[in-house]
Formats: sequence, C-alpha cells, structure tokens
Amino acid sequence: MDPELHPDLTSLSFLLATWRGEGDCTYPTIESSHYGEELTFSHVGEPYLVYTQRSWMPEDNAPVHLERGFLRPGAEGEVELALAHPLGLTEIAHGTLHGTGLELSTAQGGVGRAHTGLAVTGIVRRYRVDGDVLRYEVDMATEDTPMTRHLVAELRKVPA
Amino acid sequence: MDPELHPDLTSLSFLLATWRGEGDCTYPTIESSHYGEELTFSHVGEPYLVYTQRSWMPEDNAPVHLERGFLRPGAEGEVELALAHPLGLTEIAHGTLHGTGLELSTAQGGVGRAHTGLAVTGIVRRYRVDGDVLRYEVDMATEDTPMTRHLVAELRKVPA
Repeated sequence: MDPELHPDLTSLSFLLATWRGEGDCTYPTIESSHYGEELTFSHVGEPYLVYTQRSWMPEDNAPVHLERGFLRPGAEGEVELALAHPLGLTEIAHGTLHGTGLELSTAQGGVGRAHTGLAVTGIVRRYRVDGDVLRYEVDMATEDTPMTRHLVAELRKVPA
Repeated sequence: MDPELHPDLTSLSFLLATWRGEGDCTYPTIESSHYGEELTFSHVGEPYLVYTQRSWMPEDNAPVHLERGFLRPGAEGEVELALAHPLGLTEIAHGTLHGTGLELSTAQGGVGRAHTGLAVTGIVRRYRVDGDVLRYEVDMATEDTPMTRHLVAELRKVPA
C-alpha cells in the first residue's frame, strides 16, 4: 500500500514515476556512446524523493552507470540533491524549480571524492518534464576539463 | 539471471545478502529509540557493491531512515564508501577489511551537506559478520557534539 504523499513534495510530484529511454554520452576525454536508461523517482511518505538510476549498453545490456540518492525541498523554494555514484563520488547540489523544470548545480554544494574517485569537480543537471516525456542534460567539469556537456537523454514515463 | 561476481569483490563478498534485524539509536541531543532495519548489499557484475538501507519504527513501520550508496575496493587494500542520506547529506569514507570486519571513516573523505542538511561533521562505521549475523556500530560527530556512539544493530541474513 503506497503511503500518502508528504505535502512538501507537491511541487516535485511531477517527477514521481519510472522513466525509460535512451541517451547520448559525450565528453572531450572519452569516446562517445549511446545508452539505455531507467530513472525512478519514488517516495515513502517522508519529505524527500528517492532517486534510482541505471543505464546500460544497448548492445548487450551491460551496466554503464548507477546513481542512488535523494531529492528534497530545502529552504526558500530551493531543491536539494544528495547523490552517490559507484565511481567513488558523491554530489550535493542545489537548484530551483521552474514549473516542471529543475536545474541543479554542485556550485554551492560540492562533489565528494574518494581516494580513487574520478577527478570530477562540478556537475550541473537540468531536468524537464513535458507530459509523458522527461528530458535531461548533465554538464560535468573535471580537474582537466571545464564545465562541458556530458549527457543528453530523452525518457518516457513507464505506465504504472 | 545474476551476473558473475567481479573478481575485485571477492574479499567483500561476505556482505552480499539481505540482512534484517533491530538496532538502538542514541545520541546526546535526541531521545533514544529502537528501530527495525534491513540492509542489502548486492552487485551488478561491476567492481562495486550496491548498498541499500531502510529502517522503521517497530510500532507502526513508519520510515526512520534510508541510505543508498556504493562500496568498492580502492587502492592498496582500502575500501571506499560513497553514500547518500535523505537528510541532505553525503558521505565519502575509507577503511580497511579485517577478515569479515570493516571499519569506515569519513576522516579522509568527508561529509557533504546541503544548505538545510543536518550539521554532521564526521561518521565512523564498523561492520562485522559472524556466520549469519551482521553487527554494526555507527559513531557520529556534529558541529555541537564530538564523535559519539549513535547506532548499534544486530541483523540476521535473510535466506535467499
């Protein structure tokens, strides 16, 4: 039985679904690739969304990346993201909602890096939902590369 | 069909299971409580474990806490943890294995905090598996309280 949505999540409820589709990965230091992906935003009745992501190679379904984290309303209309990557990285990002669009940046949060973690210094995420379509872009900066477009994807809502 | 375990995960494979049990939460600034909990360490064939945690109040199953993250072998026998909390927090922690015991500290990693994130400054986790029992302790420091025992739990392996 699904718990009741926490009233603080009303403005973020447009994200609540499983979204599936495909994306393109580019970056100056890596070979470009195309990936399959599924994102899920769910809730447990508390004032945060649970975010789960996995992507895979379309050829053989081999895992490409996983993300796990939480999105929650902060103060003064801000949205806060706390996220973990399997690359030895974490993200703390802040952003604001524009209707069903959300831009999140680590500029006032930060990227946490384990000793052998990837040399990422900043991440900007832009999500937009139009009807049953979620589109996003992710920009990334590393110690060697300034903030550069990294991921672009278009996903469709999976019928519940 | 389960993927084959990545050879880098052999020394961490004793964690691979769902563990369920109960714990006690104490801290100088909060009322003590008892909680139910389930931890899962799983893998996708890549060189990291996927860590999922949820705890609940025994009286009514109301959610207490959730954690999502990744544990992976680092360099020189080190283990690295990248974790997200719904409290606007992330952890980057390092540690070493002693048989089926693992101690992880944020001292050389760090706690990431969103603008309204809890004022946590450090976390030390100690996990130990003996047969079908996983015991752990979590110590926590905040801006107001030095490193102090926070959680103690005993969980049992859930038959697969």
